[in-house]
Formats: sequence, structure tokens, C-alpha cells
Amino acid sequence: MLATRTLLSKQTMAALFRQPACFVHQGDYGNWGNTNVAVVFSGCGWWDGTDVHEGVYTMYHLSRNGARFQMFAPNQQQMHVMDHMRKQPATGENRNMMTESACFSHGQGMTQMQDLSKLDVSSFDAVIFPGGHGVTKNLSSFMKDGKDCKLHNDVERVLKDFHRSRKPIGLASMAPLLACRVLPNIEVTMGYERDDSTRWGNWPNTNLVQAVKSMGARHQGREPYEAYVDEKNKVVSTPSFMWETDYHYHYIFDGIGNMVKHVMRMSTK
Amino acid sequence: MLATRTLLSKQTMAALFRQPACFVHQGDYGNWGNTNVAVVFSGCGWWDGTDVHEGVYTMYHLSRNGARFQMFAPNQQQMHVMDHMRKQPATGENRNMMTESACFSHGQGMTQMQDLSKLDVSSFDAVIFPGGHGVTKNLSSFMKDGKDCKLHNDVERVLKDFHRSRKPIGLASMAPLLACRVLPNIEVTMGYERDDSTRWGNWPNTNLVQAVKSMGARHQGREPYEAYVDEKNKVVSTPSFMWETDYHYHYIFDGIGNMVKHVMRMSTK
Repeated sequence: MLATRTLLSKQTMAALFRQPACFVHQGDYGNWGNTNVAVVFSGCGWWDGTDVHEGVYTMYHLSRNGARFQMFAPNQQQMHVMDHMRKQPATGENRNMMTESACFSHGQGMTQMQDLSKLDVSSFDAVIFPGGHGVTKNLSSFMKDGKDCKLHNDVERVLKDFHRSRKPIGLASMAPLLACRVLPNIEVTMGYERDDSTRWGNWPNTNLVQAVKSMGARHQGREPYEAYVDEKNKVVSTPSFMWETDYHYHYIFDGIGNMVKHVMRMSTK
Repeated sequence: MLATRTLLSKQTMAALFRQPACFVHQGDYGNWGNTNVAVVFSGCGWWDGTDVHEGVYTMYHLSRNGARFQMFAPNQQQMHVMDHMRKQPATGENRNMMTESACFSHGQGMTQMQDLSKLDVSSFDAVIFPGGHGVTKNLSSFMKDGKDCKLHNDVERVLKDFHRSRKPIGLASMAPLLACRVLPNIEVTMGYERDDSTRWGNWPNTNLVQAVKSMGARHQGREPYEAYVDEKNKVVSTPSFMWETDYHYHYIFDGIGNMVKHVMRMSTK
């Protein structure tokens, strides 16, 4: 290696060793290196955007499993800005979803946050929506209109395009409600249907489960570390932070890991 | 189980199954359930606060290893707000570090984000600082003063208290510079000392390595998936996003995992 280094310039070595975006990228756990997954964000933070844990876990599992991914968010104002300490709306603040979502991205070029209006189904093998209240406030009007909510135009277009193209759709925490609103007869999990206190947490958002059922979806109860696979519709969901926990983040990490692996399995070309 | 349920009220069952904060919490990989770790944040986002990936990975690994943790940030304005799309300061915006850091917290009570001025070394077994430019902009004056920077008063107090008490200190990406500024003769890693292009990324911040060396620290080169342990001083560091990568987040995840495990090993009471 040292001998090689003396024969090649630094630039040549860099070109040899750097991996272009079009290359197969080999993860530790799988061989899905050609899979290209779109991930859709809606801001940054559980109460008004994409939950930081759900977004980061999704990217981690895609990385570990050897996928490439591109990140998208609407280039528009959030519904509002939440003070995450007081859990109340902050007054006089406006934030743009794409700008806030860019906190998740370290990359340059194609791995930088992009405008959701540019997401074209033909360039991707699958799409994943991490959860957080951006789903109910920015990507849909659920917070205002409940089960009769409208979806953001690009979100509706993307979900219908991937479904029509038989490409898998991954959903975490409250994101299933987006798919349930516009895709007929799908099956999802959002965790428990009633707030039975479990050993280490609660289920404070079970009203969302009732909402998706009244939209015509079938709901399957699952634990936070599980995912539910609707094989027919290629829709994979995981309860994630529908479950409220103080310290046990790793169960949610495992649930998102299962969701990502099923999405990648079904996206085999 | 069903029989038991018929004999006990829902409230009683909840009390039996819910885990109080003072309980031992058993993780999957270890038995450090009594360990209580303070994690110090500086906002939300690589360019002006705590990097979302480094913060989330730290919390995940503490959770997986069975630690309890509490989260702290200064209750003060950030140096500035960065537009993470344009990578330039946003005009006319002010954000509070503690409020922005609260995006990392889902919990109630003790697991909510707290004011760093309340962090008391006697209540904790270890402290961890995830990285991000909040380290150079909010927790220190490095961005302005370089190697002669001053630390935020509470950051200096916390680092000196944990060091004096022989309790471990964990540091990711640029956070080692905080410890190097106020603790004598420590050894850390911030990755590579020169921006040799590696197979999948670059090292654009090697000026920070030169800075900590001129502060009197010894620097040890390590890969992104490794941690360096200064056993004598109980200081553990990992390069994290000193390494710039497009898709290979899982190497950074592993480096933070190694850092957390060494911190927990050394915090055994």
C-alpha cells in the first residue's frame, strides 16, 4: 500500500478510492446495494416536523443495509413552529420545511435535502416517510380536519405513484395515516388500539388508529420493535413513537430497522 | 396473565408494570442498569448546534446498553442560526439552545431537556458531549478565538468536576476541543490529522486537530468507527462527523457505540 502510494498522485488515489454516487454500495447486513430509496421529511422535531430519532434511525438502517437514499421535503412554510420545551406553539416564528429538514443531511449534491416537488417515482425503488407531527400538520391537514383531511399535493402524488408502480412504501409512527387516506384497503400498524399502559410507556395517540380505521384501512396491533407488512400493497409500517417512552429508544430503533429491511426486500428489482 | 388482570384494577396494573425512574433498567447488551449519564446538547443541527445523528446515536446506545440518562443544554441564545440548506447564517433569527435541544427529548419530567446550570456532578456517573458546531459556536468561543477560546462557564465547570471526580467523559466529533482546552495533558482522537481522501469521504476539519495539539493535548488518529480511550484521564473520544460521508452513516454510529460502551465500562461504581 505504501509502495502504491509512492507511484500514484494524491488525486489519482482519491479518484480510485472515492465511491461515485452511481456505484454499488455494500452494507454490512445485506446486498441491496443498487436500491435507491427516497425519504420524505416535514421539518425537524416531533411536535412540528419529522421526529429526529425516526429520521436518523431510517437513514442509519438504510446505510447499514447498503442502500443509497435521497432526502426530500416540501419547500414551504411549516403549519407552525412548536416550542419543544413548553409543547406549545411559539409566537412570531416561521420556518421552512425543507430548510429545517436539511438538519438531517450531511451530504453534498444528491444527498442534500431536495424539494419534494422534484421527487420522481421512476428514479427510486421505494419511498419512506418517517413520522412526527409534521405528518399531521404539514404533509396533511389532519390536525385541522381529522379523518377527512387533505394531503399535501406532492405527498398524495408520491404515494399514488409508488403504489401504482408496485414499489414499496415504508411508514413510521403517524405516517400510515397519509397512505390510509389515499390508498384503498391497505393494512397498517400504528401500535396499540387502546392506551393500555405497557411496562415502559403509554400509547397517547390512539385516536389516530380510530381515524385510519374510519378511512377504510385495516389496523393490526404491533409492538414498538415490530413492523407490519401488507405484502399485497407493499406497505410496511411500524409503531415507533406512537409509543411514549422515557429511556427505551432501542425498541423503536428495532421497529424502524424491521420496517426498512422489509421495504428493501420488496424493492428488489 | 388474563386471570391476574381480572383481579387487579387498571391503575394497579399500571403501577406494577410502569418502571419508575429510580429503577434498574436492563438493556440488551449489558448490565449497567444503575448508570446515570448526563448528555450535554447545544442546539439542534450540525451547523449551529448538536448534530442530530450524533445526539440520536448517543441516546440510542445509552438506551441499548441499559443506562439512564438526563439531557442538558444552556438556557441561552445560540451564537447564530444557520440555514442548513445554504450553509450560511440566517438573518433576523434567534433561537434558544435549550428549546432547540428539546427536539431530542420525548420524555417527561427528568427525561425532559434541562438547564445546564443545574447539572450537578454528584448525581451522575458520566457525562457525554455529542458534537456539531454548537461546540465551536455555543459551548465555546472557538469559532471566534480559535485555540485561545473560552468555554461556556457551565461547560468548563462540568468538565472539571467530572475529571476531578474520576468520572468518565465521552466526546464526539469536535467536542474533544472542549476537554482539551481545560484539562491538562489529555489524549483524544478527532480522526485523521490530514485530509487524506479516504475511500468514502473526506476530513475537512483537520484544523481542529492542530488546535487541540497546540492546546497541549496528544492526538491519536482513529477511523470513524473507532473510539480512543485515555484510560488515565477517563476521556473517550470518537471522530464521528469530523469525517464527511454521503451514505455511510453506520460507521459513525459504530464509533459512537464504542465511545458509549467505554464510558459505561469506566463508570462502574
